[in-house]
Amino acid sequence: MKVHLVGEAAGHAADLTAHLDPSHEVVALPADAATTGAYDDRIDPDDVVVSLRFRRPSGQAPAFRLLHVPGAGLDGIDLDALRPETAVANVFEHEIPIAEFVLARLLDWEIRAGEMTDRFTAEGWPEQYRHRLPHGEVHGKTLGLLGYGRIGRAVAARASAFGMRVLALDDHALDDRTTTVFPPDRLHAFLAEVDHLVVACPLTAQTTGLIDRPALAVMKAHAVVINVSRAEVVDEDALYEALTSGAIGGAVLDVWYRYPSSSEPDPPPAHRPFWDLPNVWCTPHSSAWTRELSQRRYAVIAANINRLATGGPLSHLVRPSQGVPARPLQERR
Amino acid sequence: MKVHLVGEAAGHAADLTAHLDPSHEVVALPADAATTGAYDDRIDPDDVVVSLRFRRPSGQAPAFRLLHVPGAGLDGIDLDALRPETAVANVFEHEIPIAEFVLARLLDWEIRAGEMTDRFTAEGWPEQYRHRLPHGEVHGKTLGLLGYGRIGRAVAARASAFGMRVLALDDHALDDRTTTVFPPDRLHAFLAEVDHLVVACPLTAQTTGLIDRPALAVMKAHAVVINVSRAEVVDEDALYEALTSGAIGGAVLDVWYRYPSSSEPDPPPAHRPFWDLPNVWCTPHSSAWTRELSQRRYAVIAANINRLATGGPLSHLVRPSQGVPARPLQERR
Repeated sequence: MKVHLVGEAAGHAADLTAHLDPSHEVVALPADAATTGAYDDRIDPDDVVVSLRFRRPSGQAPAFRLLHVPGAGLDGIDLDALRPETAVANVFEHEIPIAEFVLARLLDWEIRAGEMTDRFTAEGWPEQYRHRLPHGEVHGKTLGLLGYGRIGRAVAARASAFGMRVLALDDHALDDRTTTVFPPDRLHAFLAEVDHLVVACPLTAQTTGLIDRPALAVMKAHAVVINVSRAEVVDEDALYEALTSGAIGGAVLDVWYRYPSSSEPDPPPAHRPFWDLPNVWCTPHSSAWTRELSQRRYAVIAANINRLATGGPLSHLVRPSQGVPARPLQERR
Repeated sequence: MKVHLVGEAAGHAADLTAHLDPSHEVVALPADAATTGAYDDRIDPDDVVVSLRFRRPSGQAPAFRLLHVPGAGLDGIDLDALRPETAVANVFEHEIPIAEFVLARLLDWEIRAGEMTDRFTAEGWPEQYRHRLPHGEVHGKTLGLLGYGRIGRAVAARASAFGMRVLALDDHALDDRTTTVFPPDRLHAFLAEVDHLVVACPLTAQTTGLIDRPALAVMKAHAVVINVSRAEVVDEDALYEALTSGAIGGAVLDVWYRYPSSSEPDPPPAHRPFWDLPNVWCTPHSSAWTRELSQRRYAVIAANINRLATGGPLSHLVRPSQGVPARPLQERR
């Protein structure tokens, strides 16, 4: 069995082989192998492909056993382009760095320790000590999670350890030890309560523009919107206006309205200049982007490939193999 | 009963009166009232004094019921200068902002989100997105707490919610749900394990210079020393050398080797120029200094004064009244 690492995945061969059975051959393929048939003759029916993207405009895909996406989202995958017998799996693990990023920004929004360090000088020390400016705390404040899935729960577990009150808005989650869950039709009641709003829901028809002008209008004047999900959940013009008018206190934006693409390689991240506002902290879609994330993800992928080879049940399946007689996974448990 | 707010405490009259029985008169006295007898004729035997400092070089203190220190430390209080019938109480609450500060710095040490924001530009966005640099995580790392008292436990509760492994070194604390406790004679074994060391012990004869050259030498090359307690627990020269030689990875220093005093009003914070090192983050003893800290502390003080007036048992007593027949506190519970 060969494991083909396509495009970006090829940079993680060491993360994979650290956990992979050494009998499997690891092969790097260029990014084109995901979107054209140029390398299909190298892929055998018993192989695994690891790629964030897969499509075949020709309609002809090679036979292989498993497409393992090294991320959570299937945006880059055209499932219909795969043969029915090809199983598809994904990985998570990103909820850990995203929750760390959210708490880090939330804490620094209140504490501003970085600014203290920037101002610190030996000469200024006596005066800075005598006239210390008090900062803020997250303790006792209310955190609102828009979406209470994997990321929302990871944020909630950490925020509640700080003595924050945690609320979530979700269409099917239930209250738990840390969190009180509001149904979608109570959006405005939920927003009126929160000091920090974390956008942690997927982008769907229901969530596109969910945080619109009326929603921002019911929020507290000091409230901060933290978006680590998809920009379009928050209406761009309404957010910019709320930030400049003082309707809300600030924003932490890690996700953007416009991304580089082949048709538009150098777009600005948004039409509105959020980066010029003093109450907005911008970062380049980095919240999950840690060294440890790839290590954990490729360890999951390696374990899954090892199981595939030995006939064990796969984890993280988003689509089982349909074309060949299914292995009796249920009976194996 | 009058409540005298001395010096710095006078700035918190509103925090106190928000919770104080309105029958008590609140009086501001200048800082001199703590260290001279100049205002003693205004203090009556039934009164309360709220002050971070109290001494009487003359040996003559006025009679009053309660000295309430609006902080945890009694460094500024000469207990022998007080009459035996004067009770002494203190307040805590600082473990909350200190723990938040520690976690904020720890997270940003790994994530560097502030630096990402400083670099973010609309023009740079496509390039920054395509070539994102991975950052670090605290998840799975080992946090060492030098001292496992009120502050150490507050840090441990939060750090463990991030999936950190938490160790502590303490001379009497026991293992608990979050933390494995090492005895003092295992200092080097403890230090060899930790990725982040938080100094959270009081300064005593045993802890002065405890983190010396041999101690720093056993730490990991990427380890970070975070001091939010007292500078002198860490030997100044040894720390500076470890930071410049690469023996450890960095330091977060909020407490200092030299403070402004009446005899030396403008000292530099240390002999060694820690503030010139790129791997040291300096702040001016600010970790606990929050708006909410004073509000919580004066709420505790007000509740205690209300209890004193109604004969209820006092909380936070560090010295009960000795000269007058003690109220039977035990029986009141």
